[in-house]
Amino acid sequence: MIRLYAAPTTNGIRAKITLEECNLDYKLINIDMKAREHKTKEFFTMNPMGMTPVIIDDKGPEGKEITVPQSIAIMFYLAEKVGKFIPKNPTKRAVFWNLMMNAATDVGPTYGAISFIGRMEHPHNPTRDKFLDRLMENYIVWDKILQDQTYCVGDEITICDFALFGIHARTKVLLPNVIKGLENLERWANLIKQRPGIKRGQNFDE
Amino acid sequence: MIRLYAAPTTNGIRAKITLEECNLDYKLINIDMKAREHKTKEFFTMNPMGMTPVIIDDKGPEGKEITVPQSIAIMFYLAEKVGKFIPKNPTKRAVFWNLMMNAATDVGPTYGAISFIGRMEHPHNPTRDKFLDRLMENYIVWDKILQDQTYCVGDEITICDFALFGIHARTKVLLPNVIKGLENLERWANLIKQRPGIKRGQNFDE
Repeated sequence: MIRLYAAPTTNGIRAKITLEECNLDYKLINIDMKAREHKTKEFFTMNPMGMTPVIIDDKGPEGKEITVPQSIAIMFYLAEKVGKFIPKNPTKRAVFWNLMMNAATDVGPTYGAISFIGRMEHPHNPTRDKFLDRLMENYIVWDKILQDQTYCVGDEITICDFALFGIHARTKVLLPNVIKGLENLERWANLIKQRPGIKRGQNFDE
Repeated sequence: MIRLYAAPTTNGIRAKITLEECNLDYKLINIDMKAREHKTKEFFTMNPMGMTPVIIDDKGPEGKEITVPQSIAIMFYLAEKVGKFIPKNPTKRAVFWNLMMNAATDVGPTYGAISFIGRMEHPHNPTRDKFLDRLMENYIVWDKILQDQTYCVGDEITICDFALFGIHARTKVLLPNVIKGLENLERWANLIKQRPGIKRGQNFDE
């Protein structure tokens, strides 16, 4: 069985919903980040970066146990394990790389920078506001992309949807003004969140 | 032939060195970011995010022209096109996902946040310093990783090396104190930069 060490952050949510969507058996080990459980000596042996989430798959490649930290890495690892949620057609795959990496390296880290500034002892709001503007610009482009298609990468659901949904779900709760009025994004999020795997994936009260 | 629209940023460098390392024929179109050439109407048709780099491959999948924006996406697209620089062995591949995504979604965006704050009208140095600390923490872990292996993902060079090198090369010029004394990282960078493809890849004076 796979063990998932995570907290209900954007990163934790996307790892957990991918496990659910891939229909894999797993056990959640809740990590209390306020108690700094991800900064213990034991945790650093799983992830030298001291960051959640981490999975340990006891039936990894070549039948051996493997530890995979890093939320986007976990998504790729799991999607390849079950052979789903990454386009196989080479044209769609090129489109996928662009949008997946936009979600993973632009939208996600911009959201992350806002959280990071917010957690500082003396958060500097004008700087935070610039990152908020940047996040909003990203979501506006995503709203345009989603105007013409059902899912992030066209008519096929991919791990890009799970990655973006994890960020969007937290944005909706914590920074609702950033996505206010973006109707295509809202329609997409409403479609995604009806999926049973997505519902179960967001539940950290186990 | 592939057209590369780029400036010599961390993102531009990693796209250009990947083209060189993949031994692909390409033409560089230098984008003057100070003149906001990446924010023109024409540029937005290539990348709705208005960001460099972008490639247009006239011999894309299924023989059709394709536009691929986003530096990490370009690396995946090119590496898959030539079948190199992404591990095929599933155990190594899992390790690759973790480290590649760390470079792409943690180190790169933290460096990017520092640049972003630096470009603000009134940069707030205490906030910038927190991101600098975070970047340093990332490089310290990378230094430990590189203590035991030649390349980022073991004994095999991958696009993870090109991704990290692009950031490291700019860090060395612009933020040298962040990486001062990290000997394994320095040894790795010195090995990488001797490669003819890496040398040509960093040259934007064409």
